[in-house]
Amino acid sequence: MKERLVTRFIDLVGEKHALLPQEDISRYTHENRGLYIGKTPVVLKPNTTEQVAQIVRLAHETGTAIVPQGGHTGHVGGAVPDESGTQIVVSLERMNKVREIDLESNVVVCEAGCILEGIQNIADQNDRLFPLALAAQGSCQIGGNISTNAGGTGVLAYGNTRQLVMGLEVVLPSGDIWHGLRRLKKDNTGYDLKNLFIGAEGSLGIVTAAVLKLFPKPKGKGIALCGLESASRALSFFQRINEVAGSSLTAFELMGRIPVAFTLRHMSGTKMPLEKIYPWQVLVEISSNRSQEDATSMLEEALESVFSDGLVCDASIAASVAQQKEFWDLREKMPLAQKQEGGSIKHDVSVSIHKIPEFLDRANTIIGSEIKNARICAFGHLGDGNIHYNISQPENQKAEDFLAQRQHINDLIHALVVEMDGSVAAEHGVGRLKQPLIAKTKSSVELGLMKSVKQALDPQNIINPVKVL
Amino acid sequence: MKERLVTRFIDLVGEKHALLPQEDISRYTHENRGLYIGKTPVVLKPNTTEQVAQIVRLAHETGTAIVPQGGHTGHVGGAVPDESGTQIVVSLERMNKVREIDLESNVVVCEAGCILEGIQNIADQNDRLFPLALAAQGSCQIGGNISTNAGGTGVLAYGNTRQLVMGLEVVLPSGDIWHGLRRLKKDNTGYDLKNLFIGAEGSLGIVTAAVLKLFPKPKGKGIALCGLESASRALSFFQRINEVAGSSLTAFELMGRIPVAFTLRHMSGTKMPLEKIYPWQVLVEISSNRSQEDATSMLEEALESVFSDGLVCDASIAASVAQQKEFWDLREKMPLAQKQEGGSIKHDVSVSIHKIPEFLDRANTIIGSEIKNARICAFGHLGDGNIHYNISQPENQKAEDFLAQRQHINDLIHALVVEMDGSVAAEHGVGRLKQPLIAKTKSSVELGLMKSVKQALDPQNIINPVKVL
Repeated sequence: MKERLVTRFIDLVGEKHALLPQEDISRYTHENRGLYIGKTPVVLKPNTTEQVAQIVRLAHETGTAIVPQGGHTGHVGGAVPDESGTQIVVSLERMNKVREIDLESNVVVCEAGCILEGIQNIADQNDRLFPLALAAQGSCQIGGNISTNAGGTGVLAYGNTRQLVMGLEVVLPSGDIWHGLRRLKKDNTGYDLKNLFIGAEGSLGIVTAAVLKLFPKPKGKGIALCGLESASRALSFFQRINEVAGSSLTAFELMGRIPVAFTLRHMSGTKMPLEKIYPWQVLVEISSNRSQEDATSMLEEALESVFSDGLVCDASIAASVAQQKEFWDLREKMPLAQKQEGGSIKHDVSVSIHKIPEFLDRANTIIGSEIKNARICAFGHLGDGNIHYNISQPENQKAEDFLAQRQHINDLIHALVVEMDGSVAAEHGVGRLKQPLIAKTKSSVELGLMKSVKQALDPQNIINPVKVL
Repeated sequence: MKERLVTRFIDLVGEKHALLPQEDISRYTHENRGLYIGKTPVVLKPNTTEQVAQIVRLAHETGTAIVPQGGHTGHVGGAVPDESGTQIVVSLERMNKVREIDLESNVVVCEAGCILEGIQNIADQNDRLFPLALAAQGSCQIGGNISTNAGGTGVLAYGNTRQLVMGLEVVLPSGDIWHGLRRLKKDNTGYDLKNLFIGAEGSLGIVTAAVLKLFPKPKGKGIALCGLESASRALSFFQRINEVAGSSLTAFELMGRIPVAFTLRHMSGTKMPLEKIYPWQVLVEISSNRSQEDATSMLEEALESVFSDGLVCDASIAASVAQQKEFWDLREKMPLAQKQEGGSIKHDVSVSIHKIPEFLDRANTIIGSEIKNARICAFGHLGDGNIHYNISQPENQKAEDFLAQRQHINDLIHALVVEMDGSVAAEHGVGRLKQPLIAKTKSSVELGLMKSVKQALDPQNIINPVKVL
């Protein structure tokens, strides 16, 4: 890219807020796990919507590609520039103001660069809940969460990020600003533009701010860890407790034997409250808007009924807030623990909830016949039909030998998911990693629809090109 | 339209399932209230998705305009053909099969022509709840509900129709079929096409089937009618009870003094459980997944706290299911009762919840200065920020004299709504009636976005043209 053009971009944000390749900018250009090593002529850090709009207008005028970037914690390379060195990274990190918190309407208006945990904390300080919760919450930014329609552990009761957003402000590929910061529960004045930008991974425009929903903070929580013999019993357990607790059921996380063992082995401070590790563990959380006692009694009621039916072998109810955290630690430290066991082949997939046992059976059979002594680390959000079906390498094998089979194993598992009408990108999105997979697995009609939308909004293909589609 | 072309269309469904203008087809061509008297060369009644696709393919090939139609119960003329006699009506009424009910995943797969009440009943028979509920439920069709993103009384806890749809099957303006009948809670594989069709009023394609969410049927309900002195107290009441009951709060309906009086006067069997009619009445409903006792105790707890603060003057808790129905009758029969009082000028608007008292004050001031002795019939879904701000004619005035002011009054109220960042079409949609209003009140950026989406999907402008945009 010509130096003069780079200078024009830099002038829009000021030299202090532009990083050049001679500096260490790897955190903006390298994918977390080293899957992609991108290049960029400059990283720009605008701090107002108008600056973002000016950048995009100049990009539009000059046909320059832009890669919008949040906390850069994604798993699919959606926010990395490519290797050409021509794609400008626009980091939203300085747009981190909370513009307004409106407790009467239970909304907070945040700029895209706000860290998720900061929003959770602001809600908490105001006796509210912002329920989006995920492993990267300490560094991911809400703009990225919105652009990837992030999932996490709060989806069961509160929905994906999509359900938490009331309005958006977006800089369009033309450089125009769409002022859609609505806070209306009902608004049927034309097409749903908001949902088009949510989950578009920055390829239809740059989200600069959002109106987010806040919820009453639960007055009490009941949390239990349960041991079960099979995934199909876990499904029956889920259906039963869902009937009793309904919207009070705020988590239902499934954990296989192997990843629980890994966590207990590697993560200091983790403890097993059950007598032994069962084939499956379930973490159940029930929340009450009334009181701690109410939450506990709801949980006890629910457990009683599944115990008497023999669905659950063993259960432990957390006796204190500290123990509740211990239970959650078992689940949340799982991805980190798995890292300690060498190479891992991962799948972020979903199927209709009732098909989860079948999916696990069939996937296990496939893996069993492909890789001797593979260690299957299945865990995830059973209540959302979303399983992280990961495979840790056999002991005493070289990681690179194991990982050489990645594409082949991915193909087999994804084919199974497609056959079962599931999703090959349940909560982490498409980005660059799964773009070829999407092109292969979607129908031509669906791909055609998406492409015509992209073409309509970004005819020059300058905003996060070659991601998603 | 040439006879030969009409014959080609008829051949696709068979003569038995095509209605010609010489028959009485006014129910397909006339808007309910007589606002529009349309004409059509033929009403086609396909009964398979493939037939719908064939119709659209022929329309695409010949540049023929198509108007998809459901139960034809809308309030904005979104499903009427225009006066030209060239727009073919495609009624989905014969596509009324329930394709599947899946209790394990809590979904039902319905064709577009299923009557809403039928779906409610099927859910109920299976010990589930389909929470979409509105006045026209006995004759409206789910395809129309989806295409208009219908609201109603269940929105507070369960969301608009948008939140109740997991997947769609749509015949696109090209005649291609989009097979999007997913039943996944998490699926981040590209742009959100589903939400583009929901609320598009049939102008981006014809919805032919949908996967709908079912919910646990509440085990008990607590319903109270309360009398209050002001709308701002009603707002505080809502905020308080929302904190206590959270997602168990399944209705919070506000009713002014005048429409309550109208209902008691005209609707046989309606009764007032309070000592007198207060300036504002609120109907509160709390649902429990546990038991009737639990629902009642939650309601009592909530009422106690608002009573002791003086927010509520008087309250009556329904003592039986029959009395619960009586309380709901007061609210549900309100629109019919208003008809008995002569001409009415209506507004289906929403604002951010906390602005409702301000909106009512300012709107009342406007009406007070414009129409002497106007009778303001404000009622609606306070918890959704959605008020039906209707004005009944003064007594002893001719309806037509009163209605002559409609456009002027509409303009004033809609200007107020826009100034307050509200929506001029909260739950009834745009259709033909509000199309000019949308063109006037939306920003050029937003209109431009919508037009580019329409152009991308329907470049010939053949599917429900001149609606919405």
